[in-house]
Amino acid sequence: MDNRPIGIFDSGVGGLTVFKEIRDLLPSENLIYFGDTARVPYGGKSVQVIQKFSSEIAHFLELQNVKMIVVACNTASALALNKLKTSTSLPVIGVIDPGVRAAIKVAGNGVVGVIGTRGTILSGAYQERVTRLRSNIKVVARACPLLVPIVEENLMNSDIARLTLEMYLGDFKKMGISSLILACTHYPLLKPLIAEFFSDSVALVDSACETAREVKEMLVARRIANNDVRHGSEQFFVTDSPESFATIAGDFLGRPLAGECILHSWQTEFE
Amino acid sequence: MDNRPIGIFDSGVGGLTVFKEIRDLLPSENLIYFGDTARVPYGGKSVQVIQKFSSEIAHFLELQNVKMIVVACNTASALALNKLKTSTSLPVIGVIDPGVRAAIKVAGNGVVGVIGTRGTILSGAYQERVTRLRSNIKVVARACPLLVPIVEENLMNSDIARLTLEMYLGDFKKMGISSLILACTHYPLLKPLIAEFFSDSVALVDSACETAREVKEMLVARRIANNDVRHGSEQFFVTDSPESFATIAGDFLGRPLAGECILHSWQTEFE
Repeated sequence: MDNRPIGIFDSGVGGLTVFKEIRDLLPSENLIYFGDTARVPYGGKSVQVIQKFSSEIAHFLELQNVKMIVVACNTASALALNKLKTSTSLPVIGVIDPGVRAAIKVAGNGVVGVIGTRGTILSGAYQERVTRLRSNIKVVARACPLLVPIVEENLMNSDIARLTLEMYLGDFKKMGISSLILACTHYPLLKPLIAEFFSDSVALVDSACETAREVKEMLVARRIANNDVRHGSEQFFVTDSPESFATIAGDFLGRPLAGECILHSWQTEFE
Repeated sequence: MDNRPIGIFDSGVGGLTVFKEIRDLLPSENLIYFGDTARVPYGGKSVQVIQKFSSEIAHFLELQNVKMIVVACNTASALALNKLKTSTSLPVIGVIDPGVRAAIKVAGNGVVGVIGTRGTILSGAYQERVTRLRSNIKVVARACPLLVPIVEENLMNSDIARLTLEMYLGDFKKMGISSLILACTHYPLLKPLIAEFFSDSVALVDSACETAREVKEMLVARRIANNDVRHGSEQFFVTDSPESFATIAGDFLGRPLAGECILHSWQTEFE
């Protein structure tokens, strides 16, 4: 029995899709969510910068006495997970392995597709994991930088979104894709449109749910689950306006935040 | 005669449009450009965060011994200019006043339109300046968050861009707009498409060129121009990959960088 909180972080608000699945699966766990909204997005930035930002957040979460760190951001999972694992003694879980395992399960003999930010796709992390787990499977990957702003502009059911999918995924149709990993926390909100685009013939894999399952397994295996019968607490830290975050968070969670949302300002040092 | 450099800053690479105009107009000045590429974009972030980031950059530029600070970012000009002016003894110039003056000059009896990021438009800075300078003029403003990623995806001549303009600017056509301020450094790259959209009936005002003129006037008025006959030096500081910056910079400048590009990593303090 370990009642320390689980720390979950993302570049912004998108990781709340992962937070939500963890909350649903593990109602008694205390949860801390960190959204780096002052420096969002991570998707187009370099490995060095993503590793630096991720280490700073992990360090902050350690100071909050978390028992485990969940990297809910695909870009940070792709570029910084191994680095984080070597720099902390806490267990660290990213969203890539759970997503890849789920995709392979449903892929059959078809091709696995992956879509994500430029950082995630260029890292090759998903492609490498898929072929490491099943060497005879074909993977195709594509960076789709316009999809996040389309979700943020609430254009999930627009001709602009349809044309954008056609541009990014037109050739995926001819490639015999049987499963598609939505390797960015914003993309699940485009699920209906992507399903329509592929005429429902492709399994869409959203890692949030798989990641929550893996978190549960690890808590049990390490005997650090919280077996309290009461409902766990929730606390949110963001680096830009808590009010804006709380408003947008409602769309991701389908309910208001159930805990306080606190501003954490990064203090910059000048030599 | 003052041979200290002029400091120019932006959230990323877009401010190079302002840098270029200053370079062309003032060939003997030494220039330092700062692009905060690790924390880009500024457009959707809060006043507090933009003011903090802008102060940090201004402080960095002061340490480089600049004689003047040019805020080449529309969002920072809208949200942080007054704050910067009170916190430094150096002259500070933003892009808003020059753009507004140019728009009013060409507006005639028509309506002035303003397009920019969410931060710029919600601040009301442009709208307020226009009506302060000419109280009887009508201003309409619209935030266009999709336009920056469209430029960054090099979709300046696509159906996606056309549909997006229709969505954001469709009703501007009926409003009798005579001049349109492109209040974001990325938008000048969409000039041909926007001109086509308005059938060349609207004057498109790009503040970069007006800002450079104002910089020159201020140097002369304060007697701090550099009268050296040699060509001025150029130096670039960025907070993410200098290599990526140098590559994209070529598209904005139409030539390679003529000076070194140095990584400046913000050092984060933990209490």
